[in-house]
Amino acid sequence: MLELNDDRETLIDVALGKIQPDLIIKNGKLVNVHTSEIYATDVFIKGKRIAAVGEFNQYPDEKTHVIDARGRYLVPGLIDTHMHIGASHLTITQLARSLVAHGTTAIVSDFYEIYGVSGIRGVKFLLEEASKTPLKILYVVPALLLGFEKLGTFGVDINVEEMKEMLKWSETIGLNEPPPSKVLGRVKEVLDLIRLLREERKVFSGHACETFGRELNAYVAYGGYSDHECTTPDEALMKARLGMRILIREGSASPDLERVVKVLSEHKTNSRHFMFCTDEITPVDLARYGHIDYKIRKTISQGVDPITAIQMATINAAEYFKVENEMGSIVPGKIADILLVDDLQSFKVFAVVADGKLVAKEGRFLAEAKIVTYPGFLKKGVQLKRPIQPEDFKIKTQPDKKEVTVRVIGVEDGTLLKKALTAKLRIENCCVLPDVERDILQISAIERNRASGKMAHAFVSGFNIKEGAIASSYSLVYQNLVVLGANYNDMCVAVNRLADIKGGVTVVRNGKVTAEVQLPIAGFLSDKPLEEVAEKFENVHKAIRELGCNFKAPILTLAFVTVNSIPAYGITDMGLTDVDKQEIVSPIME
Amino acid sequence: MLELNDDRETLIDVALGKIQPDLIIKNGKLVNVHTSEIYATDVFIKGKRIAAVGEFNQYPDEKTHVIDARGRYLVPGLIDTHMHIGASHLTITQLARSLVAHGTTAIVSDFYEIYGVSGIRGVKFLLEEASKTPLKILYVVPALLLGFEKLGTFGVDINVEEMKEMLKWSETIGLNEPPPSKVLGRVKEVLDLIRLLREERKVFSGHACETFGRELNAYVAYGGYSDHECTTPDEALMKARLGMRILIREGSASPDLERVVKVLSEHKTNSRHFMFCTDEITPVDLARYGHIDYKIRKTISQGVDPITAIQMATINAAEYFKVENEMGSIVPGKIADILLVDDLQSFKVFAVVADGKLVAKEGRFLAEAKIVTYPGFLKKGVQLKRPIQPEDFKIKTQPDKKEVTVRVIGVEDGTLLKKALTAKLRIENCCVLPDVERDILQISAIERNRASGKMAHAFVSGFNIKEGAIASSYSLVYQNLVVLGANYNDMCVAVNRLADIKGGVTVVRNGKVTAEVQLPIAGFLSDKPLEEVAEKFENVHKAIRELGCNFKAPILTLAFVTVNSIPAYGITDMGLTDVDKQEIVSPIME
Repeated sequence: MLELNDDRETLIDVALGKIQPDLIIKNGKLVNVHTSEIYATDVFIKGKRIAAVGEFNQYPDEKTHVIDARGRYLVPGLIDTHMHIGASHLTITQLARSLVAHGTTAIVSDFYEIYGVSGIRGVKFLLEEASKTPLKILYVVPALLLGFEKLGTFGVDINVEEMKEMLKWSETIGLNEPPPSKVLGRVKEVLDLIRLLREERKVFSGHACETFGRELNAYVAYGGYSDHECTTPDEALMKARLGMRILIREGSASPDLERVVKVLSEHKTNSRHFMFCTDEITPVDLARYGHIDYKIRKTISQGVDPITAIQMATINAAEYFKVENEMGSIVPGKIADILLVDDLQSFKVFAVVADGKLVAKEGRFLAEAKIVTYPGFLKKGVQLKRPIQPEDFKIKTQPDKKEVTVRVIGVEDGTLLKKALTAKLRIENCCVLPDVERDILQISAIERNRASGKMAHAFVSGFNIKEGAIASSYSLVYQNLVVLGANYNDMCVAVNRLADIKGGVTVVRNGKVTAEVQLPIAGFLSDKPLEEVAEKFENVHKAIRELGCNFKAPILTLAFVTVNSIPAYGITDMGLTDVDKQEIVSPIME
Repeated sequence: MLELNDDRETLIDVALGKIQPDLIIKNGKLVNVHTSEIYATDVFIKGKRIAAVGEFNQYPDEKTHVIDARGRYLVPGLIDTHMHIGASHLTITQLARSLVAHGTTAIVSDFYEIYGVSGIRGVKFLLEEASKTPLKILYVVPALLLGFEKLGTFGVDINVEEMKEMLKWSETIGLNEPPPSKVLGRVKEVLDLIRLLREERKVFSGHACETFGRELNAYVAYGGYSDHECTTPDEALMKARLGMRILIREGSASPDLERVVKVLSEHKTNSRHFMFCTDEITPVDLARYGHIDYKIRKTISQGVDPITAIQMATINAAEYFKVENEMGSIVPGKIADILLVDDLQSFKVFAVVADGKLVAKEGRFLAEAKIVTYPGFLKKGVQLKRPIQPEDFKIKTQPDKKEVTVRVIGVEDGTLLKKALTAKLRIENCCVLPDVERDILQISAIERNRASGKMAHAFVSGFNIKEGAIASSYSLVYQNLVVLGANYNDMCVAVNRLADIKGGVTVVRNGKVTAEVQLPIAGFLSDKPLEEVAEKFENVHKAIRELGCNFKAPILTLAFVTVNSIPAYGITDMGLTDVDKQEIVSPIME
């Protein structure tokens, strides 16, 4: 947890040479993100913080630990400016180990999935859990959820008064993703929350997906000075010109970086208001590519200068989120989060000092993971009213028709945006029939936290599954159970198995489970190490490919189909949301 | 006054085109400080704020005012990051008119002189007065004064509890100049104030005069992330490397810009953490050269790119002082402080829009000055216990000596630093005799707010006055009356005349007043327009030159002789302060 006033007084005496530092990093080459220089210097650390930077002829006594950097670069700890933890499927304890080993020492996160499942107590539990790791959570209140309680069922009742309380917490640095539709619509509770944000001098982390022109101006005018939804360099430039900080996203379901970064490498826009974020990343991608270190490598490979790329991951982020007194550079007073990097071009993190201690080396976290006992309210798993039967999936319609036109959610790999498609489907025995041949599949969302029995159906195209079914109890906003399949029997098996294993992902073919991941904490997190979870997901991906779907991150994409803040549609237990109108519409048009 | 939440809701509807703007600025070339670009665009303003920036084919109705920029550059309102109002000798109402006409729309200021004379009620009166002008006061609490009550007499009792109260005011953005000596000495009340600053998420505006190495690291480690006291490019680079924001000063008594800016023009350091400040400026310089516009011109003339210079005066300042949601660029939501500039190289401000209204054109403020009635507590002028007599100035010593060694304050034009000199002086009738021939003059400080009769004497070298005397009731920290002269008679006349005119500056030669300025508000401010006050000061400077002193800003330099936070000495009504030791020492050494 970020504590603004912890033990800074002692730093004065250490800097003055009256008290010995706990740690000296010698023989490093400092990457100075303030002056854009690189030069040799030593760093003196006391407790969690940097006391002095310079060459002071201070000889360590026997209690002072010395790290010889052997000429390696000293880089400030990296900051992810927008990351939801859900898609990693790791508990904070396990996520922290993986991220820190890659050099990430702080993430801006809202824990909105946990908040939706278990309310404030879940968020507090996670913040407390995180405070025992070297990963700093820059907490932002999940304003995106406001108003969404009308379009789906959360695990708990959410309300703006609770968010106001959260906004005042000392660990809270801002408000996450106040939705453009609510701001532009002048929804009183959202505007009130933003007013309070300004009074608290905290930060607006915006979300301006598919927002342009007048609408974008209106969003910015009310304080939306950042965005993580740019997918092209032109969009990024347009938004940067309006004063928005651009949080360039490289996430598993939306790898935007290579395109967006051209605004720097080709258009040569001033980089100071650009930074990196992940949004959502799968355990597979995290294990395979890394985290912010990967985004730095990719940015450099696009022709951006390494110091600029490092500034994006450090000082630029710290400044926008108003934590520049705590992190973002290697100077006195800041938390001692320092990476040792062999070579700036390839940007491989050799070792990580976090909170003033050496915590990771050559990609491995050094200490054993602490065992965390999760409370009962985070272990409810999947609560169904009763086992699901094939009958439950049937979409009934008028008996006198042979055919109907239906709304279809058009999904594509590599983008979070969904198209509003239509299709004609046959009716048989008063039921609308999905058409596996034409890739018009049925997708269903089932309320899973309150055992209410609520469920709703819609049609989706793009996954191209020709047989079997996929079910997941991870679905972003409401943590509904979401299931997609080529037939109702396999969908049933997939869902009921999820209830048995208390949440996770199941892939079913011909009535048999061909792959699964157990995610028993809140129904979407595992307390196993990244490598283990990633391997399970590799198996799930393989099993899904066998069903016909070649998506890179099919479970994450499935989860995004449910999201009703990203156009055009989202499916929840209450029905199909028209995102622009923010209302439920029938999957059947006529 | 800066109001974070005023009338932003309407901006949404204006941006969306549902409501007409009040003002449209058309045909301007926007200097975009975010992207470092210049391009043609229109700006739409509602009330005090910008609602939209872009080209929207919105045709004004009859109520919408339109300014045709005729291809001029649109530049954000300029920000002075550290300015005391005292040396301008103008009331806020008059100062605002002058600064705004030059394009400055916000200043970071602590009103410490007024606070020292009249306490919180004086500060509140000035903030209220300022709020009726287009000049935004970014108020910072005068932490520099803490501990100084032991070394001189303020007009009111000051204390840390009152400063804590001021720090919580909504108009307060930070803490001004917590002194290095107190921070490094871990003085509890100063450290407590800084702790509160962090909790309030406000800004540390540092003051690290003559602070280097370990001491500088210690100051930064406790939060001193900025400084306005750099006098060389090397000093600026050293401080910038430690993460300090460099507030490049160009003030009347310390014109540092031309030297310091070489850190950008020659060393090519990243400019994002550099900005401009004035500290103290005389009415003569303000009338002759201008304000931040002059610093921009000077910076460009040193080879810095115009966009970079403009960023220093706008977005860089707004970001460090955490007012970037309010000012610093021309984007939706911010206050509509916009300059029309003919040419970026010569940077002459053609017109100024402030708070959404055209307020100045071709260097002239358009509206008449509002008449302000000042309260009695700001009109006490100079309160002496009784008229001063020549006898009062005598420095007595032991009768058995012919000669003593004395401490001499060594003053030089163009620097605030004072040297610790010594000299041997003759004794006659048990009194130490100043030596006009060798330019060892007597300087005396007289308490003038409480009529306590306290006064103290010291010796000064550098002014080179050969006859007459100069007295001023403006002396920075304590607002003592300070008098310097070649003989006690003229010193007497100068002081007593000041009491008659209720404060200001007097120059006396052969028993006659040869020039004077009346500054009746708090004893150092005039409610007359800049031009009039500047002319009076020109006369004062001329009269002083006739006494033998060729200093550029002699009254300001005289005031700085009293300051006991800038080495080596300061003279107050309690005596001569050794600045390093922060204690009173005798002017006589043996």
